[in-house]
This record gives sequence, structure tokens and C-alpha cells, in this order.
Amino acid sequence: MKVTVVAGNPKPGSRTLDAATRLAEAVSGRAPDSVIDVITLGPGLLGWGDPDVAAAVKTVAGSDLVVFASPTFKATYTGVLKLFLDQFATGDGLKDVVAVPLMLGAGPGHALAPDLLLKPVLVELGATTPAPGLYLIDSTYTEDTRIADYTRRWAPALKAVLA
Amino acid sequence: MKVTVVAGNPKPGSRTLDAATRLAEAVSGRAPDSVIDVITLGPGLLGWGDPDVAAAVKTVAGSDLVVFASPTFKATYTGVLKLFLDQFATGDGLKDVVAVPLMLGAGPGHALAPDLLLKPVLVELGATTPAPGLYLIDSTYTEDTRIADYTRRWAPALKAVLA
Amino acid sequence: MKVTVVAGNPKPGSRTLDAATRLAEAVSGRAPDSVIDVITLGPGLLGWGDPDVAAAVKTVAGSDLVVFASPTFKATYTGVLKLFLDQFATGDGLKDVVAVPLMLGAGPGHALAPDLLLKPVLVELGATTPAPGLYLIDSTYTEDTRIADYTRRWAPALKAVLA
Amino acid sequence: MKVTVVAGNPKPGSRTLDAATRLAEAVSGRAPDSVIDVITLGPGLLGWGDPDVAAAVKTVAGSDLVVFASPTFKATYTGVLKLFLDQFATGDGLKDVVAVPLMLGAGPGHALAPDLLLKPVLVELGATTPAPGLYLIDSTYTEDTRIADYTRRWAPALKAVLA
Repeated sequence: MKVTVVAGNPKPGSRTLDAATRLAEAVSGRAPDSVIDVITLGPGLLGWGDPDVAAAVKTVAGSDLVVFASPTFKATYTGVLKLFLDQFATGDGLKDVVAVPLMLGAGPGHALAPDLLLKPVLVELGATTPAPGLYLIDSTYTEDTRIADYTRRWAPALKAVLA
Repeated sequence: MKVTVVAGNPKPGSRTLDAATRLAEAVSGRAPDSVIDVITLGPGLLGWGDPDVAAAVKTVAGSDLVVFASPTFKATYTGVLKLFLDQFATGDGLKDVVAVPLMLGAGPGHALAPDLLLKPVLVELGATTPAPGLYLIDSTYTEDTRIADYTRRWAPALKAVLA
Repeated sequence: MKVTVVAGNPKPGSRTLDAATRLAEAVSGRAPDSVIDVITLGPGLLGWGDPDVAAAVKTVAGSDLVVFASPTFKATYTGVLKLFLDQFATGDGLKDVVAVPLMLGAGPGHALAPDLLLKPVLVELGATTPAPGLYLIDSTYTEDTRIADYTRRWAPALKAVLA
Repeated sequence: MKVTVVAGNPKPGSRTLDAATRLAEAVSGRAPDSVIDVITLGPGLLGWGDPDVAAAVKTVAGSDLVVFASPTFKATYTGVLKLFLDQFATGDGLKDVVAVPLMLGAGPGHALAPDLLLKPVLVELGATTPAPGLYLIDSTYTEDTRIADYTRRWAPALKAVLA
């Protein structure tokens, strides 16, 4: 099983990336094989055909389990993450990929965003999304039990599809 | 495996019900065990504690696979279907139920509704939803190949979670 | 100017109705001309052609400003409210009606629902919706300043369209 | 009155830009004062503090009427457009701006996206959005009557708020 983390925070090495890595580890039981910190791909994201971007897309498309993570900007996922998702083929760019939508916010008010806004983009790319999106508070996710609770509740469904 | 169909059309015996039954059969390989034509539950839907409504809720909550179907009214699912969904417990009313959102419309303009609007309600009730929502054109679904295409593409993921 | 309040709580005389009335008064500067407590319309909501339901629809369609209010059930508006909205004509059932979406919840987690879920239904009915949806906490709305803050910020845009 | 067009197509000089300009002209009765073809702002969009990006944000924030336009990528607006919107202040970055969401697609299936997905971002930025989003078919918008129909129906509400 190949596990990948994608983080769409405009700041590299963000808490978004950290939370996504923790979630991927919790759900899969091991460290991710690949980590895509989208912003580090640079200006090639703004066009088509950049080799580093293409390699990142290929890594994600060839993964079994991918956590797609974003901070909440303007009540939804970031432009940086969407730039990267726009590079995938519609309908089957994420075929046979089990995807978990993850968003972090400063407060609880945007908790509906992972399921109402981020998950539908992954579905449009053909991903399999058996579990709900997860929304974490960015100042407390390292201490609260939300990742553990989510894993207990949803790892079985994720693993069933991955098997 | 217990298979159930829920149809939220204000008219009993609707094409919504028929399409949902066909989808359930295509995905599961056999006739549904239970069919809930929501409108036939009558005025008990408007309150709490009606025994027939409670029995229907229990049937659905105890199913393994449920197709939740609605015609498109005002660009989303019907009030009749939502009345019935309002009877379930938040968070775990559909725990361990694999749910497939299905909507029918007169034209293609509302094709985003199953994933953007109906699926999130099922997720809120705790359902497992590995596959995308399906949107059918109500005048052609008996002749076009959409149910068959959907089944070929998504039955494996649905069955993996059901196993 | 004709001001109407529509509340879609399954319980008559609810806090939803109270909050909607307060919001309508704050925005318009006077008591509403009509109050539709949807659940009191009874089983006629489940079909078409009930005279009391038709009269309520006519009252709303003939209003200048309408607050459409719902408690949050399953992360969105209620089936009771949607039953009533299903009675309006698509496209122009709320033509020339300035509509304000209002939702109440026990906590802040569903704050996106008025704009992502309730407002689009009103838009589909042809309503004019210049202001954002408002989300109130049902245990504190009588004491906090959210209705006043909303009114200060958005009454000018609402009044401009109403003029 | 200051009228601005914002187009978020990764290709400069796109049909998205053309359609947005036509819509702005139809609604306001004159050519736009400013046109922001977002992709031409270049890599400065990926960070904060780029002077050209800041100037474009200031132009938009200081406009009275802005058409925000995007092609449909993965069933929603583009990453390029969202990158630009991420540069505005939450809550009041578009205060006193009347915003019109416009999306173009190859077919009718994504017609719900302007109201369900693009408009809520503009609302989060504080824009006033009295009219529905508009969805155009990219191969026919220069010949069909949708811009004219929309203008006839919605220019009065837009002008009322602009007055």
C-alpha cells in the first residue's frame, strides 16, 4: 500500500502538512511514502507541463491512500491546493485512489467545508471517498483526540476499500 | 446482506422509486429486501414517534446497503425525503449503512446536486458513502446506460465496504 | 412594504420563529405583517392543492421582504421548511421577493449552512438575496449582538433592493 | 460607478474574460473600467506582498461592480481564481462591492456551481450579491441569449444596490 500526503498551504512546512501526516499515519499505521507540499512546486503550478508538477501528479495518482489537506481560506480550501488538483484528469485522475479530505481552521465555524466543498472536487476526479471529511482546529489538533477518534471510527471503512 | 430502497417523491409509486430499485438491484445483484416509499408513511412524518415511521427508520438503520433517491425539486432533494432523514439520529443514525445518493431530474443542469447536497446529509447521519452520487434523467434512465456504467465503475468499492 | 416571516421548525411557536421575527423587525424597523409557522399548516404540506398551504404560498410570494428560518437538522435546513418551499414555482415563485436565509444551531459548527445550503434554494425560486445568510446560536441569540450586527451591516443593501 | 472584470482562466485572453466583459457591459451599460486577467499577474499570486497583485486587489476592492469569472475545472472554479481571491481580507475585502459570479462550462452539468460554490466565497469576502450566479456554455455564449436574459431579469436588482 502506497500512502501519500498532499498539503495545500501557501506556507511550506505548515501545520496543515503536519496534521495531514499525522492523519495518514493514524489511518494507515505507518509513515507516508510520499509527501507533496504543494507550494514547493512553485510557479510551474500556474501552467501545464512542468516536470516536477507532473511527477507529483503521477505520485498521487499512483497512490492507494491520499490525505488531501488544506487550511481554510475564505471558508473553503486554498487556491494553492486547487491549482494542484486542476492538474489531474477529470473523471479518472484519482481512479483507484482512496482519498481523505482534511481541513484545518482557526475556529469551528467552517466545519462543513471538508464535506461540502473539498470532497466533491476529489469525487469529480474519480477518487473513492468512503469516510467523511475531517475538520481540525489548527491550534489544538496536536492535543485533542479528533484524529484518534476519526481513525477509530473510519479506518475500518478506509481499509476495506484499500484491501 | 440487507438491501433497502428509500424514495422521497411526493407521488407514490414514482419513477424515483423505480430508478432506485433498479440501481439497488444492479449494484447488489438482487431485489431489495425492503422498499420505503416515504410519502406512504403519511402525516406521521410531520412529528415524532409515529410507529410506522419508526419502523421504517429501524429498517433503514438495520440495512447494509441503502439507495436514497429523490427527484430534483428546486435544485435539490425533496422536503419529503428530508422529513424522513430528519427522523434519524445525528452522527450514527446510519452507522454501518453503505449509502448511495440518487437523484433524478428533467434535464442535466442539476447533476451536481447528489454530491453537493444529498450526500452530505447522509454523511452527517454517519453513513459510509464510498461512491459518488448518481444523477439520472427521468425520461431516459430506463433506456440509457447510466445505471449500468455506474455499477461497473462503483460496485467494487461498494462491495468492498459491504464485505 | 409587506414583511413576512417563515419558520420551518417541526415544533410550533419555536425559538426559530422568535428569532426570525426579531430579525425581520430589526431589518425592516417594524413588526412583520404575516407570520407563517409552517408546521401549523399540517398534512396539506405533503401534497398539492391544500387551500391553507396555497394561501400561505400566496402571502409569501406577495411579500416584499421575507425571512426564511430553520433550525439546523442533520447539518442543513429542515424537511418541514423544504416541504413548504417545494410548493413554490421554480424560477419565479419568489420573484421580486427579497429573501433573508436564517438558521439556528446548538453550536457554531454548521455556520456555513445558510449560505451554502438554504440560500441556493431561495435563489432557485427567483428570490433576490443581497445579504449573506445569518446563523445564530439558539441558546444565546436573545442576548448576543448578532442580529444587531447583521442589521447594521446589511440593512442598507436590503433596503436598497426593497426601495 | 467603477466596473471591473476578473477572469480566472489559466490561459490569458480567454473566452472566460470575453464572456465576463460582455456580462459587465450588458449589466452596467458601458465598458469595464478595469480588467484583471488573473493569470497575467504571474508567480506573485503564489505568495503575499507582490506589488502587482496588491494593485489588482486594490482595484477590485475599490470597484462598485465586479464580475468574477471562471471556467469550470473539476466541477468548480479554478485554482487560479481562488489564488487571487485568497489575497483579499476575510469579511470585508469586498465590502461595498456588488459581485456577480460567472462560470463557463463545456456542457450544462455544472450549472449549479456558480451559486453553490463561487458565490459563497464572494459572500465570505463581504461582497453584496443580489443576483444569482450565471452559468454559460462556452461554445455558444456569443450566440445564445443567456447574457441578455440575465441582464433583463437581474440588472434592476444590481442597479438598486449600486445606486
